[in-house]
Amino acid sequence: MDKVRVSESGLQKFCEAILVAAGVEPGAAKTVTDVMLYADMRGVESHGIQWLPIYTKRLVAGGVAAGAQASVESDNKATCIVSANDGFGQVAAKKAVEVAIDKAREYGIAAVGVAHSNHIGAAGYYTLKAAEAGFISIVCGNTTPLMPPWGGKELRLGSNPLSIGIPVGDHYPMIIDMATSAGARGKIFIADKKGEKIPWGWALDSDGQPTDDPKEAIKGFLLPMAGPKGYGLSLAIDVLGGVLTGSLFGKQIPPLFGKPEVPQNVGHFVIVINIEHFIEKSYYNHQIEQLIQGIKEVEPLPAVDRIYLPGEIEYLQYMESKEKGVPVGRKTLDEVEALAGQLGLSPANYLL
Amino acid sequence: MDKVRVSESGLQKFCEAILVAAGVEPGAAKTVTDVMLYADMRGVESHGIQWLPIYTKRLVAGGVAAGAQASVESDNKATCIVSANDGFGQVAAKKAVEVAIDKAREYGIAAVGVAHSNHIGAAGYYTLKAAEAGFISIVCGNTTPLMPPWGGKELRLGSNPLSIGIPVGDHYPMIIDMATSAGARGKIFIADKKGEKIPWGWALDSDGQPTDDPKEAIKGFLLPMAGPKGYGLSLAIDVLGGVLTGSLFGKQIPPLFGKPEVPQNVGHFVIVINIEHFIEKSYYNHQIEQLIQGIKEVEPLPAVDRIYLPGEIEYLQYMESKEKGVPVGRKTLDEVEALAGQLGLSPANYLL
Repeated sequence: MDKVRVSESGLQKFCEAILVAAGVEPGAAKTVTDVMLYADMRGVESHGIQWLPIYTKRLVAGGVAAGAQASVESDNKATCIVSANDGFGQVAAKKAVEVAIDKAREYGIAAVGVAHSNHIGAAGYYTLKAAEAGFISIVCGNTTPLMPPWGGKELRLGSNPLSIGIPVGDHYPMIIDMATSAGARGKIFIADKKGEKIPWGWALDSDGQPTDDPKEAIKGFLLPMAGPKGYGLSLAIDVLGGVLTGSLFGKQIPPLFGKPEVPQNVGHFVIVINIEHFIEKSYYNHQIEQLIQGIKEVEPLPAVDRIYLPGEIEYLQYMESKEKGVPVGRKTLDEVEALAGQLGLSPANYLL
Repeated sequence: MDKVRVSESGLQKFCEAILVAAGVEPGAAKTVTDVMLYADMRGVESHGIQWLPIYTKRLVAGGVAAGAQASVESDNKATCIVSANDGFGQVAAKKAVEVAIDKAREYGIAAVGVAHSNHIGAAGYYTLKAAEAGFISIVCGNTTPLMPPWGGKELRLGSNPLSIGIPVGDHYPMIIDMATSAGARGKIFIADKKGEKIPWGWALDSDGQPTDDPKEAIKGFLLPMAGPKGYGLSLAIDVLGGVLTGSLFGKQIPPLFGKPEVPQNVGHFVIVINIEHFIEKSYYNHQIEQLIQGIKEVEPLPAVDRIYLPGEIEYLQYMESKEKGVPVGRKTLDEVEALAGQLGLSPANYLL
């Protein structure tokens, strides 16, 4: 699919204007846009502005409460539950990370659950926030069921994302960010839009047969990463994000696309770790530099040009986007422009 | 490889006697044996008593300090570092879980690092302990480098294990336990002993070419689970277990087999979560039952007989071992009996 480069500030204002026109409060519109642009600027198209049409559809239908504020539902020493109150997951997850950082400053580690939430976009956005504040963090959450349990042929588990953020002295943090499915569903949508195949091992069709056709995969089942290991991780995240926060889990979670009028009531789970409770920050910075140098000096395999740290490819693309503009698929941009038109906005006022 | 069933209590006493004869204090000998039998009783031969010969070799050579006691190195609210003081990792990791449970009772979540440690055996042993006490837990740790960073051809990262334990009301807990390598090194040793091949995708030979020969794999490189995802997870565990505890990491960690006289100075990281800080325990038990029923009711794929929960296959084997005795490979038992003979012990006094 052709990509175009779009001005970062123009795209930011354009997306915010669309969300505000759909009834979202400006602060929340900014956060949701920040998270989408986090992804597109890093070349992670699967989590970028391609989500705006469904977000807007869910706002209009009532599945996402436009006026909701995130609020603290319970608070007890190093733990807390933040409720999204059926509003945007991004707003509540951002607040959860902020609360968890404050608590980790005091207790050394903190866990904040996010309850009654919706889609949060790229989990790496939140672990990067914590890493920029100097903290190690783990962010995960459950989603509508897209995978069977290992060996089964009915959907029970989400592609439940898992991100880990690790500060690296003066450098860009290491950001690990993965779906616990073999491939992210967003990437399957992209392959479908582009008319491309998906890798074998990502999905089964609705009869339980392996497929490389994204259309069949969307009708069928995603497979977990690393087989039963990904099944276990996805299930554990369902417990942390869903059960522990008092949100929905497993087959209870309504579909994001199919039922735009129903709040998803998914949950997320944030753990933040204060490095200074373990070792001095200056020593940490020295040691992590040693670790990274040890990785960077490794000779690549013949077919590989260089060794990357987790999140480094995305960081390099981010720097390129800062310079040249945000890469957006032509078809995705068409969809977003059409959406803007329906809301009475003129793309030309933002994107030139 | 032929397996024989051995009396649990006899094998327990036999292994303890071997360790005590090698200079280990009886309490530590019991803990180390408990962890090995945890594995063999669950059919996880890769983490069972096949480790006794190398443990003993390292005790005699000085890589494991026979008289070491685990001690609290630092303590600050919800965090703590326990040092193994170059003794058995099992002893320190067990203490770390106990300390973390106490802290999680008060703060809701706790993190305890284990510093200056050695091999801990099956990580699931420790998460099961926490689950039996009613707590969710995460246990991970770093190991001697066995994998290159993704795309590289020099060893930098361990098969760094990750276990998550989840209490399930009155039932056996869910225990997720995995190497972050595609296959555990212990399983490659077993395949070598049995003269079997290993799955493609587990390893590269020393030239960086894919191999299914366990001998070539042992000389070459393990590959991470799920490609770059396992690379990221393994690296994150190196930071938590190694860097954060002030232990060694990456290429610094000496080999477990090749240098029996050198303490490994590896680290582990334990996170314990208090369910009751989030939701009432009775409600948790109800919800987790719903989650499990949702999984158990799923229709299996044609070639699959039933759907298992994480740790369930191991639990069923444990129950069988309780009834019929512990399954041990004949060749492994021969090695352990020979070791006992060298230490002046008669196997017949224990295993009849």
